[in-house]
Amino acid sequence: MKKLYSKKEKWFYDDIRGFCCGLEIRKVLYSKKSKFQEIQILESESWGRVLTLDKAIQTTERDEFIYHEMISHVPLFLHSKPKKVLVVGGGDGGILKEVLKHGTVKNVILVEIDKYVIEASKKYLQKIHQNSYYNKRAEIIVGDGVAFIKNCKNIFDVIIIDSTDPVGMAEDLFSDNFYKDALAALKTDGILVTQSGAIFAQWEEFSKTVEKMKRFFKYVSPYLTVVPTYPSSFWSFTIASKNFDFKKIPFENVEKKYKEIKAKFKFYNPEVHRASFAIPNFIIKGLNR
Amino acid sequence: MKKLYSKKEKWFYDDIRGFCCGLEIRKVLYSKKSKFQEIQILESESWGRVLTLDKAIQTTERDEFIYHEMISHVPLFLHSKPKKVLVVGGGDGGILKEVLKHGTVKNVILVEIDKYVIEASKKYLQKIHQNSYYNKRAEIIVGDGVAFIKNCKNIFDVIIIDSTDPVGMAEDLFSDNFYKDALAALKTDGILVTQSGAIFAQWEEFSKTVEKMKRFFKYVSPYLTVVPTYPSSFWSFTIASKNFDFKKIPFENVEKKYKEIKAKFKFYNPEVHRASFAIPNFIIKGLNR
Repeated sequence: MKKLYSKKEKWFYDDIRGFCCGLEIRKVLYSKKSKFQEIQILESESWGRVLTLDKAIQTTERDEFIYHEMISHVPLFLHSKPKKVLVVGGGDGGILKEVLKHGTVKNVILVEIDKYVIEASKKYLQKIHQNSYYNKRAEIIVGDGVAFIKNCKNIFDVIIIDSTDPVGMAEDLFSDNFYKDALAALKTDGILVTQSGAIFAQWEEFSKTVEKMKRFFKYVSPYLTVVPTYPSSFWSFTIASKNFDFKKIPFENVEKKYKEIKAKFKFYNPEVHRASFAIPNFIIKGLNR
Repeated sequence: MKKLYSKKEKWFYDDIRGFCCGLEIRKVLYSKKSKFQEIQILESESWGRVLTLDKAIQTTERDEFIYHEMISHVPLFLHSKPKKVLVVGGGDGGILKEVLKHGTVKNVILVEIDKYVIEASKKYLQKIHQNSYYNKRAEIIVGDGVAFIKNCKNIFDVIIIDSTDPVGMAEDLFSDNFYKDALAALKTDGILVTQSGAIFAQWEEFSKTVEKMKRFFKYVSPYLTVVPTYPSSFWSFTIASKNFDFKKIPFENVEKKYKEIKAKFKFYNPEVHRASFAIPNFIIKGLNR
């Protein structure tokens, strides 16, 4: 059923396990089969430009802010003073743009495996990256995040894993070895966050990610949002730290930091931050099984 | 593009303004063109049975609990002691089942315009209604909710509007006259709640509903959840009362009432309740325009 948009079809369908999200497409702007994956940038009728990797929707101009703000600002506002940040994946530059809103951040390194994702995004997704690649505080590395992180010890305040689904290429980013290396790469009070899939369509991936992270990190918690263009939309992130209980951070601290920052947020605010940690009963029960 | 499932198609697509939600379908269990609409009950591959009205997904066995719990329990837990409840629409019995979880409720009247929705649901959606139609505290009326409410004065503690989209048949349920009548039908400390559409795919309908309700009710607030099988998933309800500020209810009151109730909730809990009132910046801005 999974179909790649072609001239004969007017809709692009991203389907998973009997559920699909479809977007009406006007034209194909970019199409490339790289060493790693098939990359397309589509012009949709009502959701702006769309980046797809191996036929799965990665981001759209219309709803990108939800995913990018929630994966970035939740850890960045929980950390007392994030200075050095690593983004693994995220070649579209959406997270980079968000991380740079924090004045405390002196340096953010983005490690993207596929140079064509960056190339295509630079050319077609300006609304998403807003030229964050060229910011003096940003460093772009084309390479394997798994290999890169092995050589980092006690360096990062925040690590953000913006991977594709934990199958195929991105599988290593959910492996024991990767979490061990990430743990070593974080400073004592460091925080790691990863996207952890759709609650309904990818329950197994989600629950296994939370479970695995609990084996490596002392403090682990999922948090939730809604990304309309990801199949089944109810989306999870999982945040972890080695010896810093982010659940004990008073809500007022987040509010205070939020008021101090000058940047604008389209989705995120302190109430939304707190709300993302409200976990419905069936998820609590499912994770404790 | 909107397609009704037929034997030639394996998928059912519910599309709106360039976005669609699709479900893989095994077979059609029920199909009927009533005086009001086209009703189908489909057996999906991975989301259980699906009720559609005029080709729009109304509910599925797999995610029904989110919509039904959130539209019911948010007003019911905010009201100090709900005794008499009116449900307009909701022929599938999902809301009825939730309302009856509250022991304080002595009587709940469900007014559904289409007897075939009830007939089909009784036969095929047992998992959703759980025989709530036959509860002694429930009263089922087949009729027009708009006409029914005109004759009710100062009767209900909570009114729940479970309508289809505010176009065509359900338009009257979003009209000035209806809100006036609903206002009169509520007791002094009464609460009204209505589904108010998808934040992305139905922004106009959502914002107009909030705006209109503000003309009739003193206290109005949208609240949010995610319903995977509604197109674009990010879903709104709007709650209103005439002289009772539900925003001032202490969180502890909701927690206390929740602990006292014996029923089980699959989605709802006090944290989820509070989280649903956390409104992202772009929605606040959009509503204040």
